[in-house]
Amino acid sequence: MYNFDFKNPVKICFGKGQITKLSKELPANKKILLTYGGGSIFKNGVYDQVKAATQGMDIVEFGGIEPNPHYETLMKAVEVVKNEKIDYLLAVGGGSVLDGTKFIAAAALYEGDDPWDICAKRSEIIVTEALPIGAVITLPATGSEMNGNSVVTRVSTQEKLAFGSTAVMPQFSILDPEVIFSLPDRQVANGVVDAFVHVMEQYLTFPADAPLQDRFAEGILHTLIEEGPKVLADRQNYEAAANFMWSATMALNGLIGMGVPQDWGTHMIGHELTAYHGIDHARTLAIVLPGMMHIRRKEKQDKILQYGERIWNISEGSVDERIDQTIQKTIAFFESVGIKTTLPDYEVPNSTIEKITNRFEERGMKIGEKVDIGPKEIQAILEDRL
Amino acid sequence: MYNFDFKNPVKICFGKGQITKLSKELPANKKILLTYGGGSIFKNGVYDQVKAATQGMDIVEFGGIEPNPHYETLMKAVEVVKNEKIDYLLAVGGGSVLDGTKFIAAAALYEGDDPWDICAKRSEIIVTEALPIGAVITLPATGSEMNGNSVVTRVSTQEKLAFGSTAVMPQFSILDPEVIFSLPDRQVANGVVDAFVHVMEQYLTFPADAPLQDRFAEGILHTLIEEGPKVLADRQNYEAAANFMWSATMALNGLIGMGVPQDWGTHMIGHELTAYHGIDHARTLAIVLPGMMHIRRKEKQDKILQYGERIWNISEGSVDERIDQTIQKTIAFFESVGIKTTLPDYEVPNSTIEKITNRFEERGMKIGEKVDIGPKEIQAILEDRL
Repeated sequence: MYNFDFKNPVKICFGKGQITKLSKELPANKKILLTYGGGSIFKNGVYDQVKAATQGMDIVEFGGIEPNPHYETLMKAVEVVKNEKIDYLLAVGGGSVLDGTKFIAAAALYEGDDPWDICAKRSEIIVTEALPIGAVITLPATGSEMNGNSVVTRVSTQEKLAFGSTAVMPQFSILDPEVIFSLPDRQVANGVVDAFVHVMEQYLTFPADAPLQDRFAEGILHTLIEEGPKVLADRQNYEAAANFMWSATMALNGLIGMGVPQDWGTHMIGHELTAYHGIDHARTLAIVLPGMMHIRRKEKQDKILQYGERIWNISEGSVDERIDQTIQKTIAFFESVGIKTTLPDYEVPNSTIEKITNRFEERGMKIGEKVDIGPKEIQAILEDRL
Repeated sequence: MYNFDFKNPVKICFGKGQITKLSKELPANKKILLTYGGGSIFKNGVYDQVKAATQGMDIVEFGGIEPNPHYETLMKAVEVVKNEKIDYLLAVGGGSVLDGTKFIAAAALYEGDDPWDICAKRSEIIVTEALPIGAVITLPATGSEMNGNSVVTRVSTQEKLAFGSTAVMPQFSILDPEVIFSLPDRQVANGVVDAFVHVMEQYLTFPADAPLQDRFAEGILHTLIEEGPKVLADRQNYEAAANFMWSATMALNGLIGMGVPQDWGTHMIGHELTAYHGIDHARTLAIVLPGMMHIRRKEKQDKILQYGERIWNISEGSVDERIDQTIQKTIAFFESVGIKTTLPDYEVPNSTIEKITNRFEERGMKIGEKVDIGPKEIQAILEDRL
């Protein structure tokens, strides 16, 4: 196990009816910006619950934060924050609203010239100050409710980039599984696959003698595999919704990645597919991961075999046969929840592969748990998904 | 799954060499009371490392905190805190030192007449203020390094009672697995069994449709079963020490108990055995747990069967046969690490059973996950261990 520091002070209020706790969790005497997305909160009753719980508070609203939140939109919110002298942010929505709100929180106090540098120069610029954030989550998937990560898309340059800081961890997040009751299949399936691949990025690397982290990761995978289809089959199944929601949070709150190598290559390649073609984030992961497993079968061999055996009961055949079966099982799981896994499924032209490869070439950047995946390997991973 | 609130802001600094981080984690300009136990920190080099990392800081020392820390001793420390105007506590030791330091932290700011009420009237008195605490852990076992729990023994009345508060959670805890290298077998074995039973108290109840919590609990049990004996066999095995240490922390930092029923009956009965006979805490748990499983085989049936199957591969035979085998496997594991499991093993006279039963009778208190274990059942549990 590697050395690590772990601190996650986010307060989680989990369960039905917990939105009423806003009245206690939000500080009095602050001017609050309520951020939200495309308006689903008006249809599913969450907006009404939030308003009821925050009666008498000084709240300004900012809606219209897109999936894969746009830098351009978020900068408008930063203007509102400054003009209205906002000093607390309340994100009500899914991971995109929360990621966007984290960017607003950091950009509002950023003193450099160009707030985009928060993402573009993330290795140089460490965000140490941000407005405080509270969250009501309406969509389990990203884990953003219990971490300091954010991914922002700049439309003008077709860039999708991340930043992370403890300063943008929510002070509290309210997770009421009943929000799942009104989600369309597409969003549930995306959430299941997104959480699944979050675990894989922290698990499917190389053995680091960390059996507890492995078992926690496998526990989340098992739970997603069991509970995800139950949620899809019966949207009113509260228990399944709750287990899915808690799994998605645990998948990316830092815990399972402590003391072990991490990959995130699938995400970095997937981000480019969203940047160029607007494909849902989770779907890009479902495309890339099988290619990553195939092309990296040597480097990831021990963990792919462990994953295959413990998650899919694959223990017969040669190493290559077992790896192939394990990849097929993973693909079959994604497809079973309705998520396609090849580039042609999303009408991505072959030319995109070159564009993405060139982009990594230009950035001079290698990725993966050993930082040895370069443009050539990325090309092979994507060509595997044709 | 039940509704829950979860917040654990303790910063964990894990790994070799992390004690040097004290210089960063401790606040400047505070007057610090360094608390420790019987002096093992002078032999294992931890004291020297702490001194080196805290050079130039204003530190007063208070040693001699016993295993099962004594109220009487801790009140002397409270006097030192007041006389010396201490405003930060640094616990260097095992769970007893840390538990004791939590009591000191709370008692120093307690405004009532009798600080013992913090424990004795824990259902009425909620500790909301305490001195800040940092910790360097020298013994993995109790999980005290990442929670707000404390157990204190009052010698004059032979009482061992607990209290809990978020106010006494450490601000940071340093976990360097190398401290294990110099531990005697007895303390390693105690730590393994203590952590194991912490998991069982949160797991071996009744099903609450919380598969992720179950799998996390089982992951810790598996890891303790695998890594504990490795530590005992080779005290210099850093990887095993690290996995054991992290498992002990995760066993009682609140996470696996979120949204599920909890028991703690084994602890409450075990505390009485320590109070009357000074038996090591972990050993009392190893005595009581098999009796608890036997007497509560109906109420805990589903979870005992799940535990037997997933942890010990017991899946053949009638329900009662499987439960019996599972209890035997549990006993055999405790015995395999050198911990005896019956009352006669510790020369506890039969009369103690009546004393303990009477005590629960007087307190008018029932225990267990359904709060239905009264004096009669406690008597049966203890008689099972004769």
